[in-house]
Amino acid sequence: MSHLPRFWNLGWSSFLDWWSNQSVVSEQGPSPLYGQQNMNEPLLDNSEGQLFLTEAFKVIIEEVLCKGTDVKEKVCEWREPEELAALLDLELRETGEPQHQLLQRIRDVAKYSVKTNHPRFFNQLFAGVDYHALTGRFLTEALNTSQYTYEVAPVFVLMEDEVLSKLRSLVGWAEGDGIFCPGGTMSNMYAMNVARYRAFPEVKLKGMWSLPRLAVFTSQQSHYSVMKAAAFQGIGTENVFKVKVDDRGCMIPEDLGETIELAKSQGAVPFFIHATSGTTVQGAFDPLEPIADICDRQGLWMHVDAAWGGSVLFSKEHKHLMRGVERADSVTWNPHKMMLTGLQCSAILLKDTTHLLKHCHSADAKYLFQQDKFYDTSLDTGDKSIQCGRKVDCLKLWLMWKAVGSKGLEERVDRAVAHTRYLVEEMKRREGFELIGKPLFVNVCFWFIPPSLRGKENSPDYNDRLSKVAPVIKERMMKQGTMMLGYQPQGGRVNFFRMIVISPQLSHQDMSFCLNEIERLGNDL
Amino acid sequence: MSHLPRFWNLGWSSFLDWWSNQSVVSEQGPSPLYGQQNMNEPLLDNSEGQLFLTEAFKVIIEEVLCKGTDVKEKVCEWREPEELAALLDLELRETGEPQHQLLQRIRDVAKYSVKTNHPRFFNQLFAGVDYHALTGRFLTEALNTSQYTYEVAPVFVLMEDEVLSKLRSLVGWAEGDGIFCPGGTMSNMYAMNVARYRAFPEVKLKGMWSLPRLAVFTSQQSHYSVMKAAAFQGIGTENVFKVKVDDRGCMIPEDLGETIELAKSQGAVPFFIHATSGTTVQGAFDPLEPIADICDRQGLWMHVDAAWGGSVLFSKEHKHLMRGVERADSVTWNPHKMMLTGLQCSAILLKDTTHLLKHCHSADAKYLFQQDKFYDTSLDTGDKSIQCGRKVDCLKLWLMWKAVGSKGLEERVDRAVAHTRYLVEEMKRREGFELIGKPLFVNVCFWFIPPSLRGKENSPDYNDRLSKVAPVIKERMMKQGTMMLGYQPQGGRVNFFRMIVISPQLSHQDMSFCLNEIERLGNDL
Repeated sequence: MSHLPRFWNLGWSSFLDWWSNQSVVSEQGPSPLYGQQNMNEPLLDNSEGQLFLTEAFKVIIEEVLCKGTDVKEKVCEWREPEELAALLDLELRETGEPQHQLLQRIRDVAKYSVKTNHPRFFNQLFAGVDYHALTGRFLTEALNTSQYTYEVAPVFVLMEDEVLSKLRSLVGWAEGDGIFCPGGTMSNMYAMNVARYRAFPEVKLKGMWSLPRLAVFTSQQSHYSVMKAAAFQGIGTENVFKVKVDDRGCMIPEDLGETIELAKSQGAVPFFIHATSGTTVQGAFDPLEPIADICDRQGLWMHVDAAWGGSVLFSKEHKHLMRGVERADSVTWNPHKMMLTGLQCSAILLKDTTHLLKHCHSADAKYLFQQDKFYDTSLDTGDKSIQCGRKVDCLKLWLMWKAVGSKGLEERVDRAVAHTRYLVEEMKRREGFELIGKPLFVNVCFWFIPPSLRGKENSPDYNDRLSKVAPVIKERMMKQGTMMLGYQPQGGRVNFFRMIVISPQLSHQDMSFCLNEIERLGNDL
Repeated sequence: MSHLPRFWNLGWSSFLDWWSNQSVVSEQGPSPLYGQQNMNEPLLDNSEGQLFLTEAFKVIIEEVLCKGTDVKEKVCEWREPEELAALLDLELRETGEPQHQLLQRIRDVAKYSVKTNHPRFFNQLFAGVDYHALTGRFLTEALNTSQYTYEVAPVFVLMEDEVLSKLRSLVGWAEGDGIFCPGGTMSNMYAMNVARYRAFPEVKLKGMWSLPRLAVFTSQQSHYSVMKAAAFQGIGTENVFKVKVDDRGCMIPEDLGETIELAKSQGAVPFFIHATSGTTVQGAFDPLEPIADICDRQGLWMHVDAAWGGSVLFSKEHKHLMRGVERADSVTWNPHKMMLTGLQCSAILLKDTTHLLKHCHSADAKYLFQQDKFYDTSLDTGDKSIQCGRKVDCLKLWLMWKAVGSKGLEERVDRAVAHTRYLVEEMKRREGFELIGKPLFVNVCFWFIPPSLRGKENSPDYNDRLSKVAPVIKERMMKQGTMMLGYQPQGGRVNFFRMIVISPQLSHQDMSFCLNEIERLGNDL
């Protein structure tokens, strides 16, 4: 402490004197406040709590699961933000509220929330409800443990291992590694980090200054998480090289080869190819075989972001869309999308058998990962994670899989494809629906051309007018609450709809309804 | 595509020909498989699903919430991994299982899981159950939406804003920013990334190569997530400078000053001070006022990791432990620890009002964050996140807060402190319990000195023998299932117990039981 006086002028002496005497164990004994509580009794009454939970459960069944899946009810109950805030009375106050008021709050939250379980919710890459998965989620919440050691999560350590192993076997790997992450973006980040570590293990200790400028490659239509990962991990978004795609949104492997050469010519060192199986908008699958050839030749890490498309691996009929995936080094797969486990359920799977995941991420915290435990500490898998406390995400998937079997999951994929075929046929039969390409997967992208624009493709303001159609129809459907589907522009294409037909609650009627509804809402445009 | 022939020798032409014809919409129409399903009816039967969920709910109440909080029942039902794997029959098969078997599986998962709600679970920085929070979690799971846009999460966008604002006001900020993250480690990572971006905004685009070598400062006893963050974000663990702590585990501010000078002398550029309010093992609070002085003088980002200790801000009596926190730039706070919201509930709070969080993390995905929406798109807060899909973590905290008010949350903090005082007094009264310092907070660290070691402090093998005591007692308590508390070595201290007394289900009897049990299990050692 030789330099101590240097800081003395900051006037800390009295603060630090005071500080050094702080302790919740004061010499004066308990303060009067504690006298108000009976310390010999629990503060919370379990039976009262359970009663409330049971009442609330009935509300959840009624409002979210019955009404929320009923086509006679609205998908959403739109309110302007100011109005909604007032309706919900969000303010948190000094004192608590009686149980009946809290139950009303639960009703309100349910009422004004979007019903993602509703058959007419086509808005996201998730939709519908699986009751076994939901049961697994309730059980997870009630057990409330953290997925880091066998000590506090014995069942889930073993279960995660089994589920990951089964997912890997669908990828085509007899062994390997993996972990559940809070979402596909995190899974993709894991892949990028482990790839960087494999190429340059010194990065963990020394940071990026010890490394040459790195380069990442992904398609123009890959998920934006690649950019987020590059920014977050210190690689920089300008070092993400975008590879051209064909009309369907699939990476052009020749252009990957050229882009790698381009990056090298700029002095960057390629290390990571981020291919996509199931792009977000078009549902495109990059051709994995040629990409794997390139990775092999160049010694690059091949990652497949199959967050969305991975579930095709359940289907004998459609798994060819991921032909070559077994040649990848890592795969992201989100069962919370097409498989309906509920948010969050995302796995990063690795082919590696050398414990790269652990070497790359471990910090060996002694309070958690003691080495003198009485059981095999290789079961304390938490140090593979970049998280400390980690939510249990495997149970919902495991229970659902037990309930319906791999066959049942295959059936869902095949059914979603069958719905897609039906939808596409319906669109072809109707005037005003213009498909964007032939769907590779279950994303159906299309323009609705209102009557006033039909046959006007060559007029100079056509695109401008067309771009305004989807937003208006969207506003109308939201405000009337009849259904929800998304739109976006992409590349040179002005706003078009993307409809996702994966919910097992879905029937042909719902899709016909959707098309009728677009016509109804857009025919005056 | 001028270089195309260069890759032609890889033999892709036939693959790509085949590939270009792939589409789930085949010309041949639906495959026979789809004929087996009635596409005019939903695949899943809602009422059957709801029946299962209701049956499972009863099991959860009975096994997890009744038995699981009953002191007459075990905290854990220890099994060796091989035995447990066999008992659980984890394998995932081709076909599904009948409902009664699935219900039995739920019972099994509950039976062999650790009961973290049990009054004798002292093992982690979370314990006990709050039924309102649990209700919020069930409702969150049933609604299953993603916290990124007002469009799909109108209630939760507004609610997150309200809860974050309330947490910020407890920190002492009238305005600011923030977001819920999947755990405290992620929250700490956000802080480090935003701090780096503030200091060097070019990092997002260019990566770390455009930056000087950076330096991070934290105490020797801070959480290991600082190391994980530095590794993950490309900063490198050797650029995390560890600052000395006093006997209680609190950072010594004079040493921070000196360590900063040391880093500078090595050519590193300090940018981030990671202080801790509530260290993991000892529950130490770094003195924030002097640390803030140093940050002010040097223009450094001051982050306070209050994942564990933040809840003292609810207590008028104990919030002085975080005196000076309002001077920080960011604060991590995990209500899933002391406040019992259940995993995961962690907030990163920022004082910043210039949208740093968004600028630093945004990727402007057009399919999600369309700018031509019909409502105020500043409500689409998802682009602040490094995630895309993000679990709703605010509802459980909001509902619990509504139920008990700030006053009720204060009561929990004060009660935990009162329990700590009682426990410390009890230990002082008993032979063989040697406290490690006077607790600054509710972490009670101590050695149990078995009879054979009492008075032998000076014998050469004392530490060696003492280090083996806690692991043996731990093994015995786990195998008998009577209670759970953790142990670890730290610095020069051999294995000692850390007991956490925060559960509102806890009474004095449980603590006396725990001490009796340690004596019973360790008296022959």
